[in-house]
Amino acid sequence: MTAFERTKDVLQSFAPRVSVNQVEEGRQLSPRFDRDGLIVAVTTDAASGEVLMVGAMNAEALVLSIETGEAHYWSRSRGCLWHKGATSGLIQRIVEMRIDDDQDAIWLRVAVQGNGASCHVGYRSCFYRFVALGPLSTGHERLHYTESHKVFDPAAVYGTASNPSRL
Amino acid sequence: MTAFERTKDVLQSFAPRVSVNQVEEGRQLSPRFDRDGLIVAVTTDAASGEVLMVGAMNAEALVLSIETGEAHYWSRSRGCLWHKGATSGLIQRIVEMRIDDDQDAIWLRVAVQGNGASCHVGYRSCFYRFVALGPLSTGHERLHYTESHKVFDPAAVYGTASNPSRL
Repeated sequence: MTAFERTKDVLQSFAPRVSVNQVEEGRQLSPRFDRDGLIVAVTTDAASGEVLMVGAMNAEALVLSIETGEAHYWSRSRGCLWHKGATSGLIQRIVEMRIDDDQDAIWLRVAVQGNGASCHVGYRSCFYRFVALGPLSTGHERLHYTESHKVFDPAAVYGTASNPSRL
Repeated sequence: MTAFERTKDVLQSFAPRVSVNQVEEGRQLSPRFDRDGLIVAVTTDAASGEVLMVGAMNAEALVLSIETGEAHYWSRSRGCLWHKGATSGLIQRIVEMRIDDDQDAIWLRVAVQGNGASCHVGYRSCFYRFVALGPLSTGHERLHYTESHKVFDPAAVYGTASNPSRL
């Protein structure tokens, strides 16, 4: 099967979007992908409710997530399909998948395998810092840590793989 | 002040992004906006942990959210700054704002005023349907409701305003 045939096959997994009423009030899965062919995915810990990460899925990642029950994403920094945990062992088992009103966002409630971390920096959640609220004129140093230590050492897990963060 | 001056002023509220280490491990707020000038924002109910919505913020919406403690977004469908709740009264008071590792996603933990709803369709959360997992070959009707009734009647709240959902 060519890449084109595979894409066509994957997209036929979803119902066409014919009306706002169908998309918002119906039972058909009709996700809306953006101009890059991606849909945003928010992942929370099914037990604690903590937001672990925000990622993106292309159609294939969404299909694989639905069919296997394990979170797959599209890595924008690496430009490839990404089976979360394939390198680190920190597989995200999907407890529940939800979709929003206009079907342009996915919410995954997951149980993380292994040590329970989801962040490549080594923390449990990617959201390990909070932003102090109030007037911005008081300076740029507004971030404070919510996690006191890393769950794992990224160098030991990822070795020499390049950091996916983009400036 | 011109719109250009206002934008420049707002962007100076943030530290420049000079290194991955600074962005991931530092205390400076240096958000990364995409090519449309937007950053994704995930909003959860501070008490229940439920994901209420996924939106976008431009720099001004982020600054206003930080400075006022009330959630502001950029409405992509309407093309304008959006003080959530200005029409419906369902203001989102920010209990905590977090930012992720590479600072390209915001997480808001909020207390919703009024009847507690955040979805323009009338439900509490925009994520009122779950997606059944398993082989996709079994058909398009995979969505099931998690909320049994609407919290409010959208027609009564929004009147003749156009539906923001895009096909």
